[in-house]
Amino acid sequence: MARKTGKILPGKAAAARAGNLLVLGSVALDSVKTPFGEVNEVLGGSAAFFATAASYFTAVSVIAVVGEDFPERHLDFLRQRDIDLSGLERRQGKTFRWRGEYSYQLNEAKTLDTQLNVFETFRPHVPASHQSPDMLFLANIDPDLQRGVLEQVKRPRLVACDTMNFWIEGKRDALFRLLKEVDVLVINDGEARALGQNSNLVAVSRMILGAGPKTLIIKRGEYGVLMFTGDQVFAVPAFPLEEVKDPTGAGDCFAGGFMGYLARTGKLSEDALRRAVVYGSVMASFAVEAFSLDRLRGLEYKDIEARFGAFKQMTVFEEF
Amino acid sequence: MARKTGKILPGKAAAARAGNLLVLGSVALDSVKTPFGEVNEVLGGSAAFFATAASYFTAVSVIAVVGEDFPERHLDFLRQRDIDLSGLERRQGKTFRWRGEYSYQLNEAKTLDTQLNVFETFRPHVPASHQSPDMLFLANIDPDLQRGVLEQVKRPRLVACDTMNFWIEGKRDALFRLLKEVDVLVINDGEARALGQNSNLVAVSRMILGAGPKTLIIKRGEYGVLMFTGDQVFAVPAFPLEEVKDPTGAGDCFAGGFMGYLARTGKLSEDALRRAVVYGSVMASFAVEAFSLDRLRGLEYKDIEARFGAFKQMTVFEEF
Repeated sequence: MARKTGKILPGKAAAARAGNLLVLGSVALDSVKTPFGEVNEVLGGSAAFFATAASYFTAVSVIAVVGEDFPERHLDFLRQRDIDLSGLERRQGKTFRWRGEYSYQLNEAKTLDTQLNVFETFRPHVPASHQSPDMLFLANIDPDLQRGVLEQVKRPRLVACDTMNFWIEGKRDALFRLLKEVDVLVINDGEARALGQNSNLVAVSRMILGAGPKTLIIKRGEYGVLMFTGDQVFAVPAFPLEEVKDPTGAGDCFAGGFMGYLARTGKLSEDALRRAVVYGSVMASFAVEAFSLDRLRGLEYKDIEARFGAFKQMTVFEEF
Repeated sequence: MARKTGKILPGKAAAARAGNLLVLGSVALDSVKTPFGEVNEVLGGSAAFFATAASYFTAVSVIAVVGEDFPERHLDFLRQRDIDLSGLERRQGKTFRWRGEYSYQLNEAKTLDTQLNVFETFRPHVPASHQSPDMLFLANIDPDLQRGVLEQVKRPRLVACDTMNFWIEGKRDALFRLLKEVDVLVINDGEARALGQNSNLVAVSRMILGAGPKTLIIKRGEYGVLMFTGDQVFAVPAFPLEEVKDPTGAGDCFAGGFMGYLARTGKLSEDALRRAVVYGSVMASFAVEAFSLDRLRGLEYKDIEARFGAFKQMTVFEEF
């Protein structure tokens, strides 16, 4: 069986066989300026990045909302990736818009404008057809809404979530209620330090792993990823790229590759989690090479396998 | 033969058998304040950190200068580590002093005071007994003085050097003359970007590898190390530590472990360089656990082997 050997099949064949994955998040129109270019109202949002990255590995469904103005061509792109959009609401009003800018130090975006629009009053509803996902990713959104989605589904085999400083500072108690029910927390290093109220990531990891999640994944942008699971630490560097055009969505593409791989293989061992972190890093490394999801438009599964091999080559050393 | 198998013997036995290593650098009195404590006029300086770390692997000799006021107990410590101090000049005047401070963001020191004292007029002289080193490390100092030492020795099998922004900005031409004759450049990421005049480290590596060195090692503090050699990239994360007390000297301890291992084994293959980077990272990870060289005072070789194993465990993943 494909699942037993861990072999992965690209595209539709993979999606047809794999365990299903559900993501709650945003679908947005992003306007982004970096030292390497500028784009206006392109496809963005955590669920769009996550689902596109995950679609290379497994069947993925989206719970999100867009406004009346959301361009049909973006939906066509997601459908072409076999992403199930039956949980994507289209509501009266305008789509969530985000405008940001990056300096040469590409690790952190400066938000210039956020227009929540239909996302502001979004109350996620999980259709009956989506209430038994194998795995669930709760992208960054109000922790009460994340928990609301978790309550609408039969307990998945794996639940992961993201969050941001806005909720860490403003809804700390709600966030900790959510964490009790989550298996994997995926956040960046600044958020981890804020959540753990400590500058030391080892101390932070112990605190967070004591609050519910069995696994903590800390995204460090150009410096890679740390994963803490029990007493185990796994660290993988980011792939050094000559061209980094736009880091927007890298974290969600990481999460999409990570959970897509896990949903595809069905394994949750430390070995599988480590490989999933590398597949996530592979997807993030592609995402940053172009604006929006453009680098993933022409991406083939063999490109993913080749870069996975390059990660192995980049990190391996022998003891003697 | 021990050298053939790559097996390493600790302490005196190792030093007696290994190829010899020469370091040019500073021996200083450091006063350091971090959020975790404060020390006054403790043993410091690039050559002291480097030689102590290297002494676990190989015979190491120091070219440096101290003043009349340098405490004998610090020399005793270095001698106990079998470090050859016959190239250490003691001159009239006071020893080089550095005073610095770190915030919770421990990656960068704020220099509060530098008193070069006898280091200001230091003109390194390599005694006849030290003119045929197997390997040579030129720690951060005026690039003309680094080149002066290189001219006093029979061409070693491997020459590595460090530098700093002060020379990158103030003596760029002299630095590039030096780089033509150097095999390995070991610098931090800020210095690499300044030297390469580019924010992208891949572009920087191509520029620097075109200027002389066959290998570029970029130290990224808590984010680990990148090594570029030809088309190869090797990345190793830093060891996540619960207690980081003082990062002073971590880079020189890295270089000491790196070159000490290479001098010990005598190999210069990509595989050997990768292992050397990990041994360097191991030594740096110990150095930051206490002020000055205090963590290395009681360190045993088995501690180094155990942490090397922990680095392997932290970074390994299987393809299937």
